[in-house]
Amino acid sequence: MLSIPVYADIQQAHQLIQQYAHRTPVMSSISINKIVGADLYFKCENLQKVGAFKFRGACNAVFSLSEEDAAKGVGTHSSGNHAAALALAAKMRGIAAHIVMPINSPEIKKKAVAGYGANITFCQPTLQAREGTLAQVIAETGATEVHPYNNFHVIAGQGTAAKELIEDKGGFDVIMAPVGGGGLLSGTAISTRHLLPNCLVIAAEPDGADDAFRSFHSKKLVPSIQPKTIADGLLTSLGDRNFAIIMDKVDDIVTVSEESIVAAMRLIWERMKIIIEPSSAVPLAAILEKKVKVKGRKVGIILSGGNLDLGSLPF
Amino acid sequence: MLSIPVYADIQQAHQLIQQYAHRTPVMSSISINKIVGADLYFKCENLQKVGAFKFRGACNAVFSLSEEDAAKGVGTHSSGNHAAALALAAKMRGIAAHIVMPINSPEIKKKAVAGYGANITFCQPTLQAREGTLAQVIAETGATEVHPYNNFHVIAGQGTAAKELIEDKGGFDVIMAPVGGGGLLSGTAISTRHLLPNCLVIAAEPDGADDAFRSFHSKKLVPSIQPKTIADGLLTSLGDRNFAIIMDKVDDIVTVSEESIVAAMRLIWERMKIIIEPSSAVPLAAILEKKVKVKGRKVGIILSGGNLDLGSLPF
Repeated sequence: MLSIPVYADIQQAHQLIQQYAHRTPVMSSISINKIVGADLYFKCENLQKVGAFKFRGACNAVFSLSEEDAAKGVGTHSSGNHAAALALAAKMRGIAAHIVMPINSPEIKKKAVAGYGANITFCQPTLQAREGTLAQVIAETGATEVHPYNNFHVIAGQGTAAKELIEDKGGFDVIMAPVGGGGLLSGTAISTRHLLPNCLVIAAEPDGADDAFRSFHSKKLVPSIQPKTIADGLLTSLGDRNFAIIMDKVDDIVTVSEESIVAAMRLIWERMKIIIEPSSAVPLAAILEKKVKVKGRKVGIILSGGNLDLGSLPF
Repeated sequence: MLSIPVYADIQQAHQLIQQYAHRTPVMSSISINKIVGADLYFKCENLQKVGAFKFRGACNAVFSLSEEDAAKGVGTHSSGNHAAALALAAKMRGIAAHIVMPINSPEIKKKAVAGYGANITFCQPTLQAREGTLAQVIAETGATEVHPYNNFHVIAGQGTAAKELIEDKGGFDVIMAPVGGGGLLSGTAISTRHLLPNCLVIAAEPDGADDAFRSFHSKKLVPSIQPKTIADGLLTSLGDRNFAIIMDKVDDIVTVSEESIVAAMRLIWERMKIIIEPSSAVPLAAILEKKVKVKGRKVGIILSGGNLDLGSLPF
């Protein structure tokens, strides 16, 4: 039986992390609202520490550890936002973070993780090498593994973003999030279902990485096979804990084209003057593609992060 | 004798425009602070209506008109942010805006101004044609001309940004703004000198458009001659009203290279996840070039706007 967080766990997470994480602003745009004919409220996790919602979950995982476990540090394998988030959370608690990174990770990400003082172990860029190397590091150090999304405390931490959004802006008809591994979506669904039982929870995913869409509609967890999308935060396959929560609490998952992702990203950059990464643009892309009925509705959208290489933009 | 606003005029402007203009947020970045060794607070006028501080001045000019004058509308010649700002302010008051635009203005700017319901008259792209066409439009309509910076109410309106910054974040050692025509800088100087008599007011300007620098240091108003810079909001020459205020209240004007402007712009995009136009990056460029002593100091910086063509970025 998988242990799955309930709303009380999200409340507890919020209590724990609020002194470390930003309560990010919620923004809206009159001109985007005009284009889509709805009232959209964007929860700006691109303005969160390390530039992504991932800091919430990592922070909750780190600060939930007993003193004894914490003393042995935390570990994960990641080349992305979770690695930086875990490294920073560990630094804040004054404990070690052991991060296994593929040797071909972008220099900028290696630097970011190193900059937070993590112990980095490089490995070959295969899942097998990543998992094997992490197992070895954990055997040596006794560190607690913090999985980027298929983890009780991580899911509870990610759910605090939707909790804040609803606390700050009241009732919603629809709340949307992108879905990759499902950490953000499952946390969002737990908070929303509890606070707004009648609000729809809808996720959006790229056509080129549609494992959550296929899993949701076939009711069977299927992995991502050779996913390909500009939304590089959404390449991972759903976790089983995440899948269980999603099947229970999410109303729909829809997919969008790469062109729509780029168009939605550009629209947010141009009209809202904020930097979001492609993954963040996926829910608005679904609205632009009319995959979600929003006319006249009040819609909350979680902008997952703002980390991307400004040197290779799609426009 | 030029009529020049005092702080009471800025207070009055603030009273008048606060129901129309955003009280924009003030943001800061731990990582940029580490790089420069100072506490920087950025006043985000890129998040202002029409994406620039210009809305403050235009709004004050429009709402300061008597009913009788207002009925005849307002007019200006501009291809930039001021045109959009004046058009929106006029629309909010329900009066006509007559905008003279050079025929070669970017399509996106023509559309933006037309989108606010302004009456656009196109002219040849010379200063003579712009002024001549505007004079004719004003003769025909009786509209009040609202100059983009050399205007009493515009200066008072622009001063409300620094007023809010100081109200929100308390004392500062230095307050910085970019300088083009001098509307923002002169308003900023009036507010800062009044509220924080000991705070330095320092402006930054591109090397390639250094008329304010030359005017300030020679104590003689000299015009911009064939200015060339990526900071397209700073190409204009100082107004005489603006120059008088600047000579009286500004502590220093420094210049920066194009490379520094691009580097500072990229730094703000990457670390703060907000879109700013090149003009906004000029003060931080001056800090990066060590043209301004900021070590250990608390520095306020006005980010002037966020309007630029995402299709032709310098990185």
